Amino acid sequence: MPHIELNSAEPGIRGLLRYRPETGRPLSELAEVLLRGPSTLTRGERELIAAHVSALNDCRYCSSAHSACAAAQLPGGMALVEQVRTDLGAAPVPDKLKALLDMAAAVRDSGHAVTAELVAAARDAGATDQEIHDVVLIAAAFCMLNRYVDGLATMAPDDPAEYAAGAQRLISAGYLMPPAQPDPRG
Amino acid sequence: MPHIELNSAEPGIRGLLRYRPETGRPLSELAEVLLRGPSTLTRGERELIAAHVSALNDCRYCSSAHSACAAAQLPGGMALVEQVRTDLGAAPVPDKLKALLDMAAAVRDSGHAVTAELVAAARDAGATDQEIHDVVLIAAAFCMLNRYVDGLATMAPDDPAEYAAGAQRLISAGYLMPPAQPDPRG
Repeated sequence: MPHIELNSAEPGIRGLLRYRPETGRPLSELAEVLLRGPSTLTRGERELIAAHVSALNDCRYCSSAHSACAAAQLPGGMALVEQVRTDLGAAPVPDKLKALLDMAAAVRDSGHAVTAELVAAARDAGATDQEIHDVVLIAAAFCMLNRYVDGLATMAPDDPAEYAAGAQRLISAGYLMPPAQPDPRG
Repeated sequence: MPHIELNSAEPGIRGLLRYRPETGRPLSELAEVLLRGPSTLTRGERELIAAHVSALNDCRYCSSAHSACAAAQLPGGMALVEQVRTDLGAAPVPDKLKALLDMAAAVRDSGHAVTAELVAAARDAGATDQEIHDVVLIAAAFCMLNRYVDGLATMAPDDPAEYAAGAQRLISAGYLMPPAQPDPRG
């Protein structure tokens, strides 16, 4: 049961965005730019980074939701997402993505854990400055979102089909919140 | 030296917001709502929470910047901010704020560390649901911002006077970024 009384039964971050739209709006915009905005990283790659950090933070809702988004947008599907989580070293992902995932895992530990060596490894594998920037911020943003979702003890559905359906909605409609509706009470 | 080539010499988060205004804009809006928007917590109390989490994360830039903002807006000034950092138990802050600072410190560890007991202690001391929500999100947001600032190895000035001057600017002008200027090259 959530630690506070929400105004909907929506699970995970969705109930929190609805509870406090003043903060929900910039949070949604940040997710939209980072995960779906113009980038030389594919949407599937960025969702994979979000899923990886969320799994390391043991956030079941975010990890399930973004794993589903990554699986739906990567050729390797859920099998690849699972392998990245359990055995990144052996996972069939390009060297650049692997180096970026290593960097994201360091961000999860602490900003200070992102060493010049990790950044150089990503750059040697072909990562640009903007990719390095964006991956650090994606990983950092999920260190916020995971804490927000679990810190308020929000509900996480058990059924993988719910996350798969949610991923299809996000892939077609994106992360932005709908504009505020006028209060029907006038 | 920062891990990536920024487009200004501005320190800490400021150089990052300028480097990538697409993400800078929602990040600034989030800070404005959380730290300065309408709330039953004072601006000084919210800055103190931001400073406390940033100090626990050992982020020198954010800790110095938000300590200066808190000190300028709390009757106890920098002496109180320092005491909260070094000996929260003995610091002369109201019980509600103390319970919220304990909750923020738990968020810093992990979302799962925010126990029902910590939330009940805050509520028993008078905290409302929205205050509990906002403190969890402020603490989580600084777990992002601290990782962003240190994960890209941005510069942090040494001189406390620079942070004090920055605090005065933030107190009068807020966190929102100025609207994008048209490119003078046309």
